[in-house]
Parts: sequence; C-alpha cells; structure tokens
Amino acid sequence: MEKRTDINTLGEFGLIEHLTKDVTVKNPNTLHGIGDDAAVIDAGKDALLISTDLLVEGIHFDLMYTPLKHLGYKAVVVNVSDIYAMNAVAEQITISLAISNRFSVEALEELYEGIALACKMYNVDLIGGDTTSSPKGLTISVTATGRAKKEDIVYRSGAKPGDIICITGDLGAAYLGLQLLEREKQVYLAAPGVQPDLEQKKYLVERQLKPEAAKESIAYFKKKKIQPTAMIDISDGLASEVFHICKSSKVGAFIEEAKIPIHPEAEEMALKFSLDPTMCALNGGEDYELLFTIDEKDLQEIRYMPSVYIIGEIVDAKDGIKLHTSGGNIHDLKAQGWKHFEDKA
Amino acid sequence: MEKRTDINTLGEFGLIEHLTKDVTVKNPNTLHGIGDDAAVIDAGKDALLISTDLLVEGIHFDLMYTPLKHLGYKAVVVNVSDIYAMNAVAEQITISLAISNRFSVEALEELYEGIALACKMYNVDLIGGDTTSSPKGLTISVTATGRAKKEDIVYRSGAKPGDIICITGDLGAAYLGLQLLEREKQVYLAAPGVQPDLEQKKYLVERQLKPEAAKESIAYFKKKKIQPTAMIDISDGLASEVFHICKSSKVGAFIEEAKIPIHPEAEEMALKFSLDPTMCALNGGEDYELLFTIDEKDLQEIRYMPSVYIIGEIVDAKDGIKLHTSGGNIHDLKAQGWKHFEDKA
Repeated sequence: MEKRTDINTLGEFGLIEHLTKDVTVKNPNTLHGIGDDAAVIDAGKDALLISTDLLVEGIHFDLMYTPLKHLGYKAVVVNVSDIYAMNAVAEQITISLAISNRFSVEALEELYEGIALACKMYNVDLIGGDTTSSPKGLTISVTATGRAKKEDIVYRSGAKPGDIICITGDLGAAYLGLQLLEREKQVYLAAPGVQPDLEQKKYLVERQLKPEAAKESIAYFKKKKIQPTAMIDISDGLASEVFHICKSSKVGAFIEEAKIPIHPEAEEMALKFSLDPTMCALNGGEDYELLFTIDEKDLQEIRYMPSVYIIGEIVDAKDGIKLHTSGGNIHDLKAQGWKHFEDKA
Repeated sequence: MEKRTDINTLGEFGLIEHLTKDVTVKNPNTLHGIGDDAAVIDAGKDALLISTDLLVEGIHFDLMYTPLKHLGYKAVVVNVSDIYAMNAVAEQITISLAISNRFSVEALEELYEGIALACKMYNVDLIGGDTTSSPKGLTISVTATGRAKKEDIVYRSGAKPGDIICITGDLGAAYLGLQLLEREKQVYLAAPGVQPDLEQKKYLVERQLKPEAAKESIAYFKKKKIQPTAMIDISDGLASEVFHICKSSKVGAFIEEAKIPIHPEAEEMALKFSLDPTMCALNGGEDYELLFTIDEKDLQEIRYMPSVYIIGEIVDAKDGIKLHTSGGNIHDLKAQGWKHFEDKA
C-alpha cells in the first residue's frame, strides 16, 4: 500500500515548510521569497511587497453571524496587515471568489461594499481577481501588494539579543469575540426566538468581525524614523508570532505575562468562559496587531507611540523562549498556532 | 421579501462587471486595474504585471482523471499564460491551497512536484502563498507576477480596423481531451475493471491535463521587435476572447472559419462525439494559446513565426463580430464563454 501521511501530523507551518523545503529563488528580481509576511520583488529604487491569503467558509468564517459586508472588509484588512508587517505601504489588492449558487447578486454586492470600504480606508486599489462557481460555500482569495524603499523593509529575521519586544494593541479580544459569537449561535440554534444580546460586547465582536490593520503604526515609524529590527502581524496568536521571529532571527525571547495587553472586556469574557485571559492573548489569534522588536536606542521614541505595549526582550537563542508569569514563575512559551490543522474551531 | 437575483442571470463576465462597476483606481502607482489579463503596477523603468486565478475541485478539475502533478503544473501554466498575454515575462508566483483532510502529505508532494516543474520550465520563482484546511475538496489560488518595459505592454484595447488577427496554436483540443476523459470516467464508473485506452489520444489528453503557455511567442515578438496591437490568452474559447478584444478596442472582427487551426486528432474526436470541430475551437476553452492582433506592416514578420495562424481581420465596430463560414455564409459570432455560470461541465 502507498504511504499516506495525514496532513494533521505536520501542522500548518510544518506542512508549508515540508512542501517548500526545496524551493529556491533564481530570478534576480526576486529579492525575498517564502518565509515572511510578504515576498519582496525589485521595483527600481522601491521594492514591491506581495502577500496572499485564503479565507474559506466553515474554516475562517461562519455566515450565520458574519455579515458579508464585514467579511469583505476583513478580507482586505488581513492582507493589508501583512504588507504593514513588512514596514511597507499597501497599494493594491486582487480579490478572487469561488461562489456556490446559494449566493445571490445582492449578497455579493454586500461583500463588495465591505471590500470597497476597506480599500478606501486603507488607500488600496482593487485591481483584479477571478470569479468562479464553487460546488459548495464561499472561498475568498486576496492578494495584496505594497511598496517600500528597499532599506526600510523589516523582516522577521533582524531581531537581536537586547532588542525590546513591542505590540501595537491589545490581544485576545478577537478570539473572545469569536467564542461569544459561537455561543450565541448555539443559543440561537437551540431556541431560534431568542435574540442575542451583543450590545454590551461590541468591542469583542468588532475585533472579531471587523478588525483593523495597524496603518498608523507604520506611519509613526516613518515619521519618527524608527526602523524596527523585526516585525510580524499577529494573526495566529502572540506565541506563534514570537516563535516565528525567534526562529527567523535565531534568538530567544523573554515575555512578561503582566505586560501583555488585554482589554478589560476581553479579560471579563475570558473569566466568564473559564478561560485564562493570557492564554487567549497568546494563542487566540486574529488580532492583526503588529509584534515588533526595536533596538534599545529607540526605546525613548517608542514610549510616545500611541497604544504601544512593551512586553519583553529578545535574548540569546540558548536562553530559549520563556514566559515570566504574573505569579513569578518562568515557563517555556508554547505556541498552539503551530498546529493549525488540528482544528482550532 | 428581500430581492434575490440569481448569479446565473449575469454570467461570469456580467457578474464581475456588475460587482466592479464603481471601482476606480486612485494610487498613482496603479497603472492599469481591472479589465485585462493582468493588472499593471509601476516599478520604476519597468512595470510589474499581476494576475490571479482560482482553481476549484469539481469545477475546474476532477481528480478522478487529473494526476496531482499535472494539476500543479497546469495551475502555474494558466497564470503564467495571463502574464504572457500582456507581452511580459513571468517571474514569480504564489500558491495558496485550501485542502480537506482527504489529502495526504504525499498527495500534496505530488502537487508541488508539478508546481516546481512548471516553475523551472517557465523560469518563475515560487515566493509565497497560504495553506489552510477546507471542509471539502481542494482549491488552488495562484497569483503570478511578471515584468515588462512600460511601452512594451500589450492591452486588449489597442486593436484597430485593418489589423490582422492571429493565434499561436491550434484550438479545441483541450476541450475534446476533457470530453474524452469524462467519457472514460463514465465507462470506468459503469465497469471499474475496464482500463481506459488513451494511448492513441495522447495529444488531446495532454492539451487538457498538461497545457503549455506561449512563452516562445513572447520571445519571438521581442526578438523581431513586433508589438501586437492587442492580445489575450485563450482560456474561455476563441469566441469569448475575440469579444473581449472587440469590446475593449471598440472594434468589430471578421473571422474566417476555414483558417481556425484545429488539430487532426481534435477534428476526428469532435466528429466521433458528433460535435462541430469549429464550435469546439470557438467555445471549448483552456487552449492557453494567445490571440493577438498586429498592424498590417508586421504581417511579413509574423508569417515566419513558428506555429502562428492568421484567422481574420479587425473591422469597424459597426460591422460587428462575424464568422465567415467554410460554407460561404456570414454569421454573427456567438460567445458561450460569456455565460460561464451556467455550468459548462
């Protein structure tokens, strides 16, 4: 019998690494390939950044509680976020859709309204795509392109011991918003007459359904001439992204649990769900904040950055990736995001 | 009740046009947006081309008769073809996959083998992508990027009356290959012991399962300093592509049925299936040859181009889009490709 290895055994990142392990780039215009939030292509004095994401119904979104307009908005935001994570400005986007006959023209108009709104908000042009039928459900594929001066691009690989680890906003709220929406869905399915009360939970729901990308942070870096040493956007949870930076930069990290920013509403909701708020921040994902490292010399400027949080320090690789808990213990940090195929939902 | 317009009422091109009718581009670096085989982005003295396609299991491919290696190869080829259609050189590609648990690591390795082979054949670098789970089936999203000097880019809009209409190779074979594979599938399903005999039909099957893009044609244009006035790749059938060029260029066309190149094997198979070979060429699709128009002055150089076929002439818009049949009649050309959602399969 033929050998059959289940894809779940490798996890998402393991699978990608396995499949692309022999990939080399040959074209001199390919400045950087696989391994960061975006690839980099030569464009004269600038470089073009390109990043792509697939959003699949039933995996990434549930149309029972996701308005199509929000979904269109989010599809753009998550891709734009990858361009910002390279310290670049997002400029263009392509949107491809595979749609089953279940969707009406009016439903797609709503989706495109959200796409148009996000394009306006983030100054990106919709320049192309593909539309096709699908046997089942909706799949959205977005490719974003952006631009930066070559010397301004920030990779995951530049962090060095002594660098300060920062985040652009609070974490865990999107994940808790999802838990809340899932709970309300179950309540609704059990008793369709009951209207969900989400009014008091607006922050969490909005972080899940209509996230924003850290456009202002990139503008701030430019204005203040700060060059992060490494950067990544937080799509799979803080822990996963810390692992990515440490792996690419060949360093370790020391994270202070008490410094991880968690919104009071997220904290409250986590406790209601009997979840550890820190775990939600570390492994929840979909925050679309930026995780970045800076040289110590830039610390003073960073302190004045709006809504920035300093959560730890880069250390030598031999010192590992550690979490200094609020209780005073030191643990190895664990990243659940590294096994995405084992189904987070 | 809310209004609900079925997406089938608009057809693929109608739907895209409807959804993107208000899209405008604002970024000065966006040189050309929706409406051609690829969008165009400023890259200093060059321009970057970007094109994207979605391939959905059950719509674009059937894994009962499509080897995964061929599928990976084809996924790259169909995108590279869009870059060539702009008279540009393909350079990079991103591949995103949504995969159900049905697929093993070994199956994905096969897919990537085909991708790698096509990358090598067409000198493109695999620079990124996204891999995610899917509730059902396999979806492949490919984005290709390429490069050209700005003045060399060929759009659909440049054809003018008097221009000669040409194709880079024979048409209809991919469609007939598909019919053949579908028939063998039905035979197999009815009597699983019977081995299909496709050895004699290699050409048709290969045109369907492992098409090639017209790389040499682009190289020939460059070498001979020929600039087509308009160009498009033939993915939805000749008729559909003639319509695209005529619409963008605001011209009409006069096509000679007798000049449409059809391979003898395709001709034979069409007759076996009681299909009109010309209809297969006009509406079959997936040929991935280039349809282009040239100024009359370049006619002499084009005559020496390997495997080029001259099939007609651009005329005034008021003269319409006509087919001069082998029987001596003149008909309006019809393009079935313009209603893709009505299910070609």
